Amino acid sequence: MDTHTQQKIKEPRITLVGAGPGDADLITIKGIKALKIADVVLYDALVNEELLEFAPENAIKVYVGKRSGDHSFSQDAINKLMIDYALNYGHVVRLKGGDPFVFGRGFEELDHAASFSIPATVIPGISSSIAVPGLQQIPVTHRGLSESFWVITGTTTDGKVSSDVYTASKTNATIVVLMGLNKLTQITQIFKNEDKGRLPVAVIQSGSTENEKVAIGVIDTIVEIVEEQKIAAPALIVIGEVVSLHPLFQPIREFYDIVAEE
Amino acid sequence: MDTHTQQKIKEPRITLVGAGPGDADLITIKGIKALKIADVVLYDALVNEELLEFAPENAIKVYVGKRSGDHSFSQDAINKLMIDYALNYGHVVRLKGGDPFVFGRGFEELDHAASFSIPATVIPGISSSIAVPGLQQIPVTHRGLSESFWVITGTTTDGKVSSDVYTASKTNATIVVLMGLNKLTQITQIFKNEDKGRLPVAVIQSGSTENEKVAIGVIDTIVEIVEEQKIAAPALIVIGEVVSLHPLFQPIREFYDIVAEE
Repeated sequence: MDTHTQQKIKEPRITLVGAGPGDADLITIKGIKALKIADVVLYDALVNEELLEFAPENAIKVYVGKRSGDHSFSQDAINKLMIDYALNYGHVVRLKGGDPFVFGRGFEELDHAASFSIPATVIPGISSSIAVPGLQQIPVTHRGLSESFWVITGTTTDGKVSSDVYTASKTNATIVVLMGLNKLTQITQIFKNEDKGRLPVAVIQSGSTENEKVAIGVIDTIVEIVEEQKIAAPALIVIGEVVSLHPLFQPIREFYDIVAEE
Repeated sequence: MDTHTQQKIKEPRITLVGAGPGDADLITIKGIKALKIADVVLYDALVNEELLEFAPENAIKVYVGKRSGDHSFSQDAINKLMIDYALNYGHVVRLKGGDPFVFGRGFEELDHAASFSIPATVIPGISSSIAVPGLQQIPVTHRGLSESFWVITGTTTDGKVSSDVYTASKTNATIVVLMGLNKLTQITQIFKNEDKGRLPVAVIQSGSTENEKVAIGVIDTIVEIVEEQKIAAPALIVIGEVVSLHPLFQPIREFYDIVAEE
């Protein structure tokens, strides 16, 4: 008897799963449970590939990474693949870096699934916007320093710095900019225009992974420090008084205190 | 031989663990691994108690919940307990709702541990600020609707609405207000003053748990809808065009379209 004829046609369904910031242990239990019953896993560039081992051995695993300069998988292509695999193989786990809804275009994928009447659910992931500063022991909120945090993309659809960065520079919110490393000079200029040259800034590369690197400075100095330390993408930028809580900020504070006394 | 004399004095250490928004499956693998080697677990009110089962049977489990109106455990008392248990029993897991650094006073606990030279680390958790809207399939960011999201506390140290809410009401950011249900009338008035009466709003109670409830409306109507549906704390408020993507917003949109035509 041919085993192929035994194969049941499975109900198509899609689960968007947030894989977290990079450390494989920062996925949720719920995410692992979804992977264990995946027929297909479509995974992004920033997803830790160790997570694929939780999927059944015979599950189909497809890399659909999009990185700057590598446009082989457009969002349209991913949407199409997701539907094709669900209709032909059953349960598709769409494994995305961080949280599916933080600049992850997750809703577009849900919406596309709905247009084919394929049931789709979402399992949140640890967003680097909060966790990557947190793992450096920089809290996005702290009594007396910040009553809010504002997470902004550094790369808008039209390639410009989001106008939200201009508004944010006028507030006391902790500001987290994702995908903004190549706009760091422009972003710091916005804060200089608000006379905030001494506002603390951290730039963190590959947070939660073995390639993690951190640069700590102030608006006036951070571009130079990032160059010296050869910080590369993926990286996030944290701007605000909370960054002064990082141990590496202590000598910077002392330097400015001495300058002030002279 | 007395088993007590065999007991080794363990090195004191503290791990702050984010337990996520409520669903026990929304903790991370890393959080579970820390619980499995806990000597003591100090846990908050909004933590799912099922998670305590991951700790060893003989681990000490202490509830240190603070809820509005119940001030039996002040932050000072928690800090003191944390140190006492670490010095006497070894590894203390401080299990906190959501993420330790999102209005969780996590840094104060780290700082207190450092003042006793007790090593302390942080394991991020799923923050309700992103995940609770996400589980309702409301993305905090979405192309064409929002390039950023701004998470603000509804209850500042002095009991007032944060001034950040006033600034936020002038922007296109998705705004998430935590612990703000009892200030909803005041918050909506701030947006009415900006002529944003028709801006979509969601109020979500006990997201990710069996008590989850959602109210969807606009600035002008949400207070009434929340009362009708008897939404109670803990709840979060999401304000912004992204809320219009929720299925319950469709009839609201149609109503305003008809009004506009008349």
